[in-house]
Amino acid sequence: MLKYSVILGNLGNTCDRFLSSGYKDVLSKEDLVRQASEIEGVKGIELVGTWDVTLENAHDMKGLLDKYGLSCVSIIPDHFGQKKWGRGSLSAKDATTRSMALDYTRECVEIARILKCPTLNIWPGQDGFDYSLQSHLVQERKWLEENLYLLASEAPDIRFSLEYKPKEPRNFSFMARASDTLLMAKQIGLDNVGVTIDTGHSFVAGENVAEAAVILQEYGNKLFHMHFNDNYNAWDDDMIVGSVHFPIYVELLFWLKETGYDGWYSMDQYPYREEGKGALEASVKFLQMIDRRLTDDRRGELRNLITNGNAVETQNWLLDTFFIQS
Amino acid sequence: MLKYSVILGNLGNTCDRFLSSGYKDVLSKEDLVRQASEIEGVKGIELVGTWDVTLENAHDMKGLLDKYGLSCVSIIPDHFGQKKWGRGSLSAKDATTRSMALDYTRECVEIARILKCPTLNIWPGQDGFDYSLQSHLVQERKWLEENLYLLASEAPDIRFSLEYKPKEPRNFSFMARASDTLLMAKQIGLDNVGVTIDTGHSFVAGENVAEAAVILQEYGNKLFHMHFNDNYNAWDDDMIVGSVHFPIYVELLFWLKETGYDGWYSMDQYPYREEGKGALEASVKFLQMIDRRLTDDRRGELRNLITNGNAVETQNWLLDTFFIQS
Amino acid sequence: MLKYSVILGNLGNTCDRFLSSGYKDVLSKEDLVRQASEIEGVKGIELVGTWDVTLENAHDMKGLLDKYGLSCVSIIPDHFGQKKWGRGSLSAKDATTRSMALDYTRECVEIARILKCPTLNIWPGQDGFDYSLQSHLVQERKWLEENLYLLASEAPDIRFSLEYKPKEPRNFSFMARASDTLLMAKQIGLDNVGVTIDTGHSFVAGENVAEAAVILQEYGNKLFHMHFNDNYNAWDDDMIVGSVHFPIYVELLFWLKETGYDGWYSMDQYPYREEGKGALEASVKFLQMIDRRLTDDRRGELRNLITNGNAVETQNWLLDTFFIQS
Amino acid sequence: MLKYSVILGNLGNTCDRFLSSGYKDVLSKEDLVRQASEIEGVKGIELVGTWDVTLENAHDMKGLLDKYGLSCVSIIPDHFGQKKWGRGSLSAKDATTRSMALDYTRECVEIARILKCPTLNIWPGQDGFDYSLQSHLVQERKWLEENLYLLASEAPDIRFSLEYKPKEPRNFSFMARASDTLLMAKQIGLDNVGVTIDTGHSFVAGENVAEAAVILQEYGNKLFHMHFNDNYNAWDDDMIVGSVHFPIYVELLFWLKETGYDGWYSMDQYPYREEGKGALEASVKFLQMIDRRLTDDRRGELRNLITNGNAVETQNWLLDTFFIQS
Repeated sequence: MLKYSVILGNLGNTCDRFLSSGYKDVLSKEDLVRQASEIEGVKGIELVGTWDVTLENAHDMKGLLDKYGLSCVSIIPDHFGQKKWGRGSLSAKDATTRSMALDYTRECVEIARILKCPTLNIWPGQDGFDYSLQSHLVQERKWLEENLYLLASEAPDIRFSLEYKPKEPRNFSFMARASDTLLMAKQIGLDNVGVTIDTGHSFVAGENVAEAAVILQEYGNKLFHMHFNDNYNAWDDDMIVGSVHFPIYVELLFWLKETGYDGWYSMDQYPYREEGKGALEASVKFLQMIDRRLTDDRRGELRNLITNGNAVETQNWLLDTFFIQS
Repeated sequence: MLKYSVILGNLGNTCDRFLSSGYKDVLSKEDLVRQASEIEGVKGIELVGTWDVTLENAHDMKGLLDKYGLSCVSIIPDHFGQKKWGRGSLSAKDATTRSMALDYTRECVEIARILKCPTLNIWPGQDGFDYSLQSHLVQERKWLEENLYLLASEAPDIRFSLEYKPKEPRNFSFMARASDTLLMAKQIGLDNVGVTIDTGHSFVAGENVAEAAVILQEYGNKLFHMHFNDNYNAWDDDMIVGSVHFPIYVELLFWLKETGYDGWYSMDQYPYREEGKGALEASVKFLQMIDRRLTDDRRGELRNLITNGNAVETQNWLLDTFFIQS
Repeated sequence: MLKYSVILGNLGNTCDRFLSSGYKDVLSKEDLVRQASEIEGVKGIELVGTWDVTLENAHDMKGLLDKYGLSCVSIIPDHFGQKKWGRGSLSAKDATTRSMALDYTRECVEIARILKCPTLNIWPGQDGFDYSLQSHLVQERKWLEENLYLLASEAPDIRFSLEYKPKEPRNFSFMARASDTLLMAKQIGLDNVGVTIDTGHSFVAGENVAEAAVILQEYGNKLFHMHFNDNYNAWDDDMIVGSVHFPIYVELLFWLKETGYDGWYSMDQYPYREEGKGALEASVKFLQMIDRRLTDDRRGELRNLITNGNAVETQNWLLDTFFIQS
Repeated sequence: MLKYSVILGNLGNTCDRFLSSGYKDVLSKEDLVRQASEIEGVKGIELVGTWDVTLENAHDMKGLLDKYGLSCVSIIPDHFGQKKWGRGSLSAKDATTRSMALDYTRECVEIARILKCPTLNIWPGQDGFDYSLQSHLVQERKWLEENLYLLASEAPDIRFSLEYKPKEPRNFSFMARASDTLLMAKQIGLDNVGVTIDTGHSFVAGENVAEAAVILQEYGNKLFHMHFNDNYNAWDDDMIVGSVHFPIYVELLFWLKETGYDGWYSMDQYPYREEGKGALEASVKFLQMIDRRLTDDRRGELRNLITNGNAVETQNWLLDTFFIQS
């Protein structure tokens, strides 16, 4: 049985640069948590700093999660959603900003402890650059690495899972691809530092996401967390899983099992104009469908297909295994 | 029942710029035709000029097709595979080349008549440009239009179906997208001039291919022919249908029916390293599976879903309608 | 002398989906107008509905523009920035919404008349779809066309310039590419309906933007307006002109002159983290530099180069003509 | 003074999958070498295995290079251009093929020694996969790593520079991006194993190529070699340097100097329809132009600009520093 979770904010109002007030109404936190708890199979929740949880409301949030039987699987510190981080957080050119980012992340460690949450999912979306010749490419990457080392060494009880994304909101992120981020994690060299794959970020990076997972696992079991969504490959559209692609999700779920990934399968979408709960539920159902078909026997068949590498046989196997033929 | 066909050369040897001798062995024409005839559901064949058919061997080819019970659904004149067309054919800067391209296309009209083939599928792959400031953008497009008008007006018994593709072998093609090419067809203004959609070319163009089909049909029933394959959106990888995407093929088949498309469903792949017959067969089987599920009743359901536009409901419908749930 | 203008909002605060309060401070309208007037060479301004101008403040805005010596070159009706347009405006599935969108656009016609502005730049960013099988591709496009016909026929004194963009905020826009939009304009069939090119939208569409301009001009002088910016081809990054690409801007300016475009050269950027005035000024200076070099003599040279199509000669010409060699 | 070289085959005939006989005439090896020697500033040559050099003709080739005053800067073993490598070379599923690939690469070591060439540029273009569920992602990557370790440990006098490319001829390459390949090099753990950047491959990978260079240099001086060309970001178009982009090349040359890269600046293009020598020469001239402007003083200015990160100032600096203003 896979462990499914969702990001709380996916259930709420979402905005973009043209409609900054958002496409939907703002719901109460309790409504969001309750909705999450009603999605069949979902047992975990991810919370975004500032938006969902702060040091002030952490105990209240813990109460809500307990009430609805959800555990907090990760906290995503808000390194991206406030003006002060607009030019970077942990790698900002401005020393005061870097220092504030350190302090704020330490606060998130406290929040995680209050919520009995094992993982900070670090997505420093503003750390990167937009223009050629804008970034000190040596120094700024180093600051990011050093600050992550500092934080992770201070809090050995918390896992720091670095989430990569090629671009947005910066045109180039410092943590852009699986291997870039793994290199950083290895350079940091601490057991509690690993990597998060977001399937959509991986598609935009041009990666085969199953291969990204394998690389992270093979170079030291560094795949700490998984975010799921779908898109059209060019941008992080954050859509329902399976609404664009199909075989790649089979390949991904197969290799997650093969390489011993035992973490959460977390939905991360932006259902701008969709009913949030239904959109997350549809994704979970799609993954559950694949998971049900990937029995031990069929994974045995897949191992043989993969060893042979005959694409025709594999496509026929996919057709027969997953699709209604009548 | 949809009418399926294949491009003969897809069964043979295929090469690329690094392995110009090709990945596989060269088979005899009869072997290729026989293999095509053995794919369940396939009744039609497309032939490429020079590679598959010339004025010299047209009668022999007719004999072969008759022997194996296949009809020739289109001929693709070779406007791309010889050194003389390297800088363009019907729109080449060189007047002699344009004239040769006209003569050669007229020859293809003769070949089509010999083969009782109703359609020339015009893919002028070398007509375009690579660099900024390399093409006389007004004049060259005009030459292309004028020459197509000339050819189509001379042969009113033959349909000229213009196949668009954004790039390759040129970095920019003159017939790049559905609407560009429809504009050209409308400018030419003859009933026997329409457009071919290749699904993979449409993906690379960033189009929703179902929308491209609708536009062509709505602006005058100008969708003459369909090529099927799959790819990763960035390049014309010419893969097995359904090996990357899924819902878009449902949407496409639905709208082809809705808009009254009654032409061929032709496979156009480059199975570089795959056994050709199996690769084409897998594509046909994938489309047949979708087609079987798109019964009248279910298309009625889809009409309602499309009228409502609720993506969650539609994703759930796709999951329930197409995938084995146990 | 080219006529330069800017979009007023580019000088103000800009936000994205992660930082909805925006990266910068909010300035007063007068500050924005004054800044625009201080950019050397800029004589025109574009205003966005709701954000910059409404029926209520139109006379005040006229006063401001007069005070600072700027003319209003286009108004961009707000078909995208309010919750009510979240699922479409002029092509919304909901009849009441379509009716509201018509009324609102008529209001913009009134605003334009008050401001002596000749052009509505129509960018229906929410009109499109996100998922396969979500849009009634026939009906919704027809509504868009019919409503645009209605509006343009009611206001023959105002030009309606349709701005295309492949995606964002919808994953697929109905007005996606130059030719799609030209087809729509031709279908509408009114002299006061044409097309706006935004260079960045064209890059994302995979077009050669100079070719897009030529197509619009050759099929009936339908290029009504130009927006300038730069990006990395995958997304509408709305950057300073020339910060990524170079030769394509030379090709574009050349063909705008060749095809008799005499409209405005308007900057349309999103300088999220940059000082707005400086960012727009840098773009204007880049275009002025190219324009100064494109003397009559040099355009004569270019005509020869384009007729020959020798890329090596043209690259050498670009190097010698534009770059300091010492 | 930068050290410029070219790949010999760029001067010869080039083909693609549609025109397998190539766009140009085949010249003699001596003609190609002589042409290379005539490009101002070029002192080095790269040779492709099979195509340009074999064990049989290595001594003759050495004679030719000596005659024309060129040194061989790298040999690119042919791991891609023969049917036997069609499904992979050093990581092929077939053990015999892997063994043959080892033997062949050892032969290339011998060739390098004969030619006094310090570097094998390893581009295993066929090592990767096309379809989901086709590759044993763990095992095949391991074979590649092990075989490279074996080869590099056997020949400590030769540098093995691993050239990455996201795709083509496979839809996914095992050496796809800078960091993936650096991870492999670090895993191999030998001083004579590093990485080659091809600017066009990096563009296709969505990297900022200057950042890729910095990462390789910062994590252990692993940038061994540079290939230069330009493209439209979506595909390896192998065009003249500067024919699409500009500022990124300034950023790249700046950081190559900052990080102490002292290797060759090698042109790698596919001038399908252009005169080869002229196309390479235009690239070298473009880089020389940038290099001349990047004096010590101006690099000092750039250091300040990069420390500030003000994109407006930097764009103005680029405009003033590189472009003729009159």
